[in-house]
Amino acid sequence: WEQLWGAISAVFKSWNSSRAIIFRRINNYPASWGTAVTVQAMVFGNLGEDCATGVLFTRNPKTGVPGLFGEFLVNAQGEDVVAGVRTPQKIRADADESVDSISLESSAPDVYQQLQSAASTLEKHFRDMQDIEFTIQQSKLWILQTRTGKRTGNAMVKIAVDLVEEGIIDENDAIQRQDPEQIVELLHQVFDDTATYDVVATGLAASPGAAVGRIVFTAKEAAEWTARGESVVLVRTETSPDDIEGIIAAKGILTTRGGMTSHAAVVARGWGKCCITGCSALKIDYHGGKVEIQTSTGDVHVVNCGETISINGSTGEVILGSVPLIDPTFPQELDTLMGWVGKAQSLKVRANADTPEDAARARAYGAEGIGLCRTEHMFFDQERILTVRQMILARDEIERRKALSKILPMQRQDFHDIFRAMEGYPVTVRLLDPPLHEFLPQSTAETKKVAASMGISPEQIERRLSDLQESNPMLGHRGVRLAITFPEIYEIQAQAIFEAACELAAENILIEPEIMVPLVSIDTELHVVRKQIESIAETVFLSHNQRVNYSIGTMIELPRACVTADAIAHHADFFSFGTNDLTQTTLGISRDDSGHFFPTYLDKNIFASDPFVELDRNGVGALIEIAVQNGRRTNADLKIGICGEHGGNPASVAFFHKAGINYVSCSPYRVLTARIASAQATASLVQKNT
Amino acid sequence: WEQLWGAISAVFKSWNSSRAIIFRRINNYPASWGTAVTVQAMVFGNLGEDCATGVLFTRNPKTGVPGLFGEFLVNAQGEDVVAGVRTPQKIRADADESVDSISLESSAPDVYQQLQSAASTLEKHFRDMQDIEFTIQQSKLWILQTRTGKRTGNAMVKIAVDLVEEGIIDENDAIQRQDPEQIVELLHQVFDDTATYDVVATGLAASPGAAVGRIVFTAKEAAEWTARGESVVLVRTETSPDDIEGIIAAKGILTTRGGMTSHAAVVARGWGKCCITGCSALKIDYHGGKVEIQTSTGDVHVVNCGETISINGSTGEVILGSVPLIDPTFPQELDTLMGWVGKAQSLKVRANADTPEDAARARAYGAEGIGLCRTEHMFFDQERILTVRQMILARDEIERRKALSKILPMQRQDFHDIFRAMEGYPVTVRLLDPPLHEFLPQSTAETKKVAASMGISPEQIERRLSDLQESNPMLGHRGVRLAITFPEIYEIQAQAIFEAACELAAENILIEPEIMVPLVSIDTELHVVRKQIESIAETVFLSHNQRVNYSIGTMIELPRACVTADAIAHHADFFSFGTNDLTQTTLGISRDDSGHFFPTYLDKNIFASDPFVELDRNGVGALIEIAVQNGRRTNADLKIGICGEHGGNPASVAFFHKAGINYVSCSPYRVLTARIASAQATASLVQKNT
Repeated sequence: WEQLWGAISAVFKSWNSSRAIIFRRINNYPASWGTAVTVQAMVFGNLGEDCATGVLFTRNPKTGVPGLFGEFLVNAQGEDVVAGVRTPQKIRADADESVDSISLESSAPDVYQQLQSAASTLEKHFRDMQDIEFTIQQSKLWILQTRTGKRTGNAMVKIAVDLVEEGIIDENDAIQRQDPEQIVELLHQVFDDTATYDVVATGLAASPGAAVGRIVFTAKEAAEWTARGESVVLVRTETSPDDIEGIIAAKGILTTRGGMTSHAAVVARGWGKCCITGCSALKIDYHGGKVEIQTSTGDVHVVNCGETISINGSTGEVILGSVPLIDPTFPQELDTLMGWVGKAQSLKVRANADTPEDAARARAYGAEGIGLCRTEHMFFDQERILTVRQMILARDEIERRKALSKILPMQRQDFHDIFRAMEGYPVTVRLLDPPLHEFLPQSTAETKKVAASMGISPEQIERRLSDLQESNPMLGHRGVRLAITFPEIYEIQAQAIFEAACELAAENILIEPEIMVPLVSIDTELHVVRKQIESIAETVFLSHNQRVNYSIGTMIELPRACVTADAIAHHADFFSFGTNDLTQTTLGISRDDSGHFFPTYLDKNIFASDPFVELDRNGVGALIEIAVQNGRRTNADLKIGICGEHGGNPASVAFFHKAGINYVSCSPYRVLTARIASAQATASLVQKNT
Repeated sequence: WEQLWGAISAVFKSWNSSRAIIFRRINNYPASWGTAVTVQAMVFGNLGEDCATGVLFTRNPKTGVPGLFGEFLVNAQGEDVVAGVRTPQKIRADADESVDSISLESSAPDVYQQLQSAASTLEKHFRDMQDIEFTIQQSKLWILQTRTGKRTGNAMVKIAVDLVEEGIIDENDAIQRQDPEQIVELLHQVFDDTATYDVVATGLAASPGAAVGRIVFTAKEAAEWTARGESVVLVRTETSPDDIEGIIAAKGILTTRGGMTSHAAVVARGWGKCCITGCSALKIDYHGGKVEIQTSTGDVHVVNCGETISINGSTGEVILGSVPLIDPTFPQELDTLMGWVGKAQSLKVRANADTPEDAARARAYGAEGIGLCRTEHMFFDQERILTVRQMILARDEIERRKALSKILPMQRQDFHDIFRAMEGYPVTVRLLDPPLHEFLPQSTAETKKVAASMGISPEQIERRLSDLQESNPMLGHRGVRLAITFPEIYEIQAQAIFEAACELAAENILIEPEIMVPLVSIDTELHVVRKQIESIAETVFLSHNQRVNYSIGTMIELPRACVTADAIAHHADFFSFGTNDLTQTTLGISRDDSGHFFPTYLDKNIFASDPFVELDRNGVGALIEIAVQNGRRTNADLKIGICGEHGGNPASVAFFHKAGINYVSCSPYRVLTARIASAQATASLVQKNT
């Protein structure tokens, strides 16, 4: 009895352990809830050969296929199963195994029947697949514990759809049962979960999926090695737009710095490529062509260029050598489920896509348009970058227009292709946004090449480069500010958009471009640029003898734009919140630099979550609410979307739905996630209101 | 008649010229006002020797001394006076001139009497010093025009006080008559307005006053040349905290980049030193020790190190060679005027001051406390910087504490001195704010010195330096973020503050430190730091057997802090708006980089004024209003101040008064300006409400 009371009071006391208190504070659980202790009579699975202990799932947790799935040990207790010293037997033979395989079903059909009946009762009662622990004491079955079973993304989909078909739950339940984060498992390679391996370092799980490949340290190597058939993992301190080709080529990306929204993370997520960022245990020696990895136990591994590593972007784990991978498959039931989701969704989901390939993928996952087509990615193409550089380094408007006139046909073709791929859906094109120096040469060789092409000296280029340097580029000469200082840049972009639209209209292909002006802080900026775009539109329509519908709107990504949204809405057909930049300016945190201090902020519970991953509702959310109210007060028909990273984050999607946003736009690989989150948010809000 | 109608209609038509339309839009004048035409009969001052034409001020516009002051020409029309082909005679001889000097008073005493009587009538009618044009036609006096006369800062003060004493206006009128911007003329050297000179370039008028000196290009030269008795003007692309000693030494500062709130501008204003920034016509060749100046007409001047230039920080003008300067003087009447201002003021004025000298100057100008004492400036002292660097580069907390323990006595002495200088007044001390890399060595020699002092290799220092580099330092690891990651830094600062306060309390010197935590974005940050400071306070009070009153508050300088001010106010005794940083984040504009595009914004009327000079009321102002309301809702006694550059800007002061702010804090050299603006705002709000 003393032991019993000791055990009971130990459980009660655990409620006030400092770990539990912190956990409650983070999760907002009231201390008054208290905890409970279940006192159960003991049964014994180790009294002889007519005793056993086992665990089972009521359906296969990997595939979702119905039927008991589990293991048991004769004459054993629970800890023997866990300890793994004896090899347990299967409850039921796999479908592809020979019939004479020893299983509970074949060796003790009576007990198996009892177990199946209990499992079925429990599953019907709890209305979900169960994870059950049982003991057989002298041929009598005892159920020790049951709980909802963990499962893979595939099983999650199949089980929910099956349960609806079996009449156990309804369609809305099936939607609510989905973990929107887990659904991305269906889209990526993962580590084979039967494999064993040692983790040597852990970084931020920046983009899901897994990759195995030879280490390379430069984008150039990544491209070259891939071209000759190697799989590579690109390992860098940080990535920049210069590394794009290497990122495309590599199977996965691993950086030693940067957070969840660093360049590498954002680009990788956009392309559904596995990525780990901020893995500070790695020290790259570019010169020596090797990387030092310091493990948590203090061991140091030196890994050379060309050696193989495996990375898991879903967990942030880095492993030396090769871990076997499993290819993703879609369960048959996904279409049924997403059909229900589509009916339930009220917040629409679009995709961020810059190429026809991305656009096609987004449509396949059910995106209803493109919410963010970034034109700057088009500028980095190897064949174009020289012309782009000539445009930036131009000494006057005439030189700049000359370079722009070479860019025009390329841009027109870009838009032509992407509009065609999105026929029938809206496409939001963001005009040029990043600071111009991002496009400039980084090496002496490149500088010489540009200088030669422009007939000026490399020194003059160097001087211009130094003129363009900024202390805080994020708060510098970019976005609409480029259009105010160099109006001809947006002019050419608008011309390319309208000419592409007119060409397609002539083929009876219906498209409706939405032209988006980034980084607006004051209504006068949008007023000026809108007039300019409208005038270009009229010129193009006249010369093509063709009109197309279009709209003009703005990114809302600065606090000033939020508090003056009523004035800005006079000139906007739509708003699209750029929640990445809005988070940076509202919190005064550069996402590229947050790695220096934000991990400590999370450790010390200063912030409950990373505001670049889950929207900061109290801060950024408050400004979004102000902007939505102010904007709609001026323009009741204002269409309002989100095109930041948060568009694919389920908790953020729920907030956006409540805030009255019309759509979110996210990476194609997050479209399923966002759609499910949207359907869940709609249903739960409906429930609250009824 | 045709000519007359033509002239009249030309005036009416001017109301709709595009220049007038833009002017109205900027100044918010309604188009419906229209304009007027006065039609006057012609009189002639050129009909013979009994005719004349002249202009006069009713009081001396330079000194304010009463008595007619002006010139006339016999047998001439107005254009002859303006053309300057004949030398006009004085209306009245100067006090120090011989009595037989020819003047209107001596040559035509009758007309002079008529003129004096008319001037007196006009001055009494318009209740201010008048600028009058007159003609004498055949001995008969005609007044052609009268208007309020322009005057120097000195005259502005004297005339207003004299008019009160003459019973023409009251004290409130005298206050309203002051141009708060012009009052700074009383504090600085200015160009002699009788001198003539050619302006070769114009930059931003970043800090008022004028300077003449030899050009130097480095802070080191500035210090060395000044030490050997030379006057120098420091010319640089931009300045950084490393240049502090050079800025102190130089007579004036001229930079080719940067805006009104760049480092050079802010530091220069704080020290009342003349400064021009963003003078892009200059190209400095540091290596060649020369600067190229391209004039607006395309001429290029090359000026070498050591050659003399003159700069006017009140106008932004740069002149080659030496322009004569006039020393500032205070009119006797200033004390009387500021006495009235003191009675009228409801918004209090404090000063930003980091040294006892600044504090004393601020008190002399009537500052009622220090609203911002920046501790980082104390860190740059030549004797301390090595220790500061050891602290930053420390490999662990033990090394860091060792360096900090050497900094403690220095900091304690700093606070001791400044508290003593401000006896009886509050002093707001801001804990360390800038990113740590600002303190780090910039040269190889310095790196080696630090490495040697720490017993580590220069390569290790270099690596640490590169680790500390940030993409956007303004949004990086600074302010309270330093305290969350390295709590011992603020601990030592708090200890120094409390120890200094206790020492002074033991001498019965009354001081009340206000400890200010910078860059707070979330309530939890302030909660954690407040607990830490309170605990240090108790420890110090116990060991000194002495208690002092103190308060703990926060800078509100991020949009998130504004919208969550209610939560933050739970942990704050006071708020102080850091309007510089709040402007940067609200508008998403780095003040260091705005030079690349903001001039175009002003040219194109996108913004009506520079938001770093005059508070952006619609944007930043809206957030301030939200924060004031939210903060006071939680804590009705919350003291709220401003410590950004806008604290010294008259238009901004009027807004702060209306928003319910308790005090503004500005550079000592802006205290008079802010006090007058505050008194004006109080009076005009009282008038509106009655």
